[in-house]
Amino acid sequence: MTRNLDVCLTPALIPIYNVSDYIVVVIDIFRATSSICYGIENGAEAIIPVSEVEECAAYREKGLDYLLAAERDGKVVAGFDFGNSPFSYTSEKVSGKTVVLTTTNGTHALHLSRSAKRIVIGSFLNLTALCTWLKTQNENILLVCAGWKNNFNLEDTLFAGAVIEQLKGDGYVLDDPAIAANDLFQLGKNDIPQYLSKTSHGERLKKLGIEKDIAFCLQVDLTTAIPVLDGDQLVTLV
Amino acid sequence: MTRNLDVCLTPALIPIYNVSDYIVVVIDIFRATSSICYGIENGAEAIIPVSEVEECAAYREKGLDYLLAAERDGKVVAGFDFGNSPFSYTSEKVSGKTVVLTTTNGTHALHLSRSAKRIVIGSFLNLTALCTWLKTQNENILLVCAGWKNNFNLEDTLFAGAVIEQLKGDGYVLDDPAIAANDLFQLGKNDIPQYLSKTSHGERLKKLGIEKDIAFCLQVDLTTAIPVLDGDQLVTLV
Repeated sequence: MTRNLDVCLTPALIPIYNVSDYIVVVIDIFRATSSICYGIENGAEAIIPVSEVEECAAYREKGLDYLLAAERDGKVVAGFDFGNSPFSYTSEKVSGKTVVLTTTNGTHALHLSRSAKRIVIGSFLNLTALCTWLKTQNENILLVCAGWKNNFNLEDTLFAGAVIEQLKGDGYVLDDPAIAANDLFQLGKNDIPQYLSKTSHGERLKKLGIEKDIAFCLQVDLTTAIPVLDGDQLVTLV
Repeated sequence: MTRNLDVCLTPALIPIYNVSDYIVVVIDIFRATSSICYGIENGAEAIIPVSEVEECAAYREKGLDYLLAAERDGKVVAGFDFGNSPFSYTSEKVSGKTVVLTTTNGTHALHLSRSAKRIVIGSFLNLTALCTWLKTQNENILLVCAGWKNNFNLEDTLFAGAVIEQLKGDGYVLDDPAIAANDLFQLGKNDIPQYLSKTSHGERLKKLGIEKDIAFCLQVDLTTAIPVLDGDQLVTLV
């Protein structure tokens, strides 16, 4: 059977794909999916992605076991426990807890991918674990880049290229965005932080004073947990 | 003044940009914008891009001076004079004539860019003439890739990268898609036909039996005319 390995470069392009034909990997390197991988690795019971800040706030009334995380335009929304910095997802903070998370781009991409056969979360942190699992699945794969405000960004695309690098020997058919993503990865792979330092988004994040977060999110294979959407919650794949 | 040099990777992403802030270059390498450049170079009085096949057909009643060109899914639509093969745009065929053209992707991108400060047409055929002119304009530039059915394709993006290659010394600020396009161009520039032979679209066009068209459209600097939208017609920029 021919399997397709496709890359959706921004959430705005999700409608072009028949999402229900795919396992979807959602990618938002700076910083949502990196933090989700780290949080699930560190024992968060679940992470609930919600689209709107208001939905997130509504969980406050449901009890004290929820940590509320809200990020917009790279900053923690006023009144929330934290945003999407990976340093907020250590085991001290999240172990045994449920995190309710809304972010600018990542949760948007997740919600638009709802009809997929399965939705998993990817980041450099869990790269090889993710790819090893994907290879065992006899399914088409769609790598969905969360991008920045519905447009293409380099870091998510580069990560898609890194996934393709591990899978491409297995006989998948690549679409043009997948070919491009993997080619860009060839240019960046020897020094990913250096390669990404020239991007507009990298500049934007630097201005926000989160260089430490960026460096953290570009670590490869720090974790092995694969967050998977189960109902409306992201939990660890078992 | 800072000028932006941005790349819109597919027509689906045009709404993200404030098109009225830019000079727009519409790019549909295989084959609409290559044929438009060739036709205008060869003395076509004007080329009228229309969105729908029916709009194109309606010109039949307006007189015999119109050549009607309609392409869908890479093929000439039944009942039309020709489609978008560059070999239909020789001076023997188009000199002094007005061509009414509808194509799958290219005319779509053109219509969505209507509010731009100016719309010009780019292809490898007129690459250097186009870039030389763009450099004289003190404006933001948006390179709009027509893509394939609203998704990214490699050949249009590679051409955007070729334009950026000529302009990037002039102090433009590039967005992430522009950085990626120029990086992909670095990978492909030494042998563009070879680089593009691996794309899905290249495969599709090969199946349509138009390898000769593809080779033609990848010739660099065969022409110097710059087609520009004037009202509803593309004419030569003077």
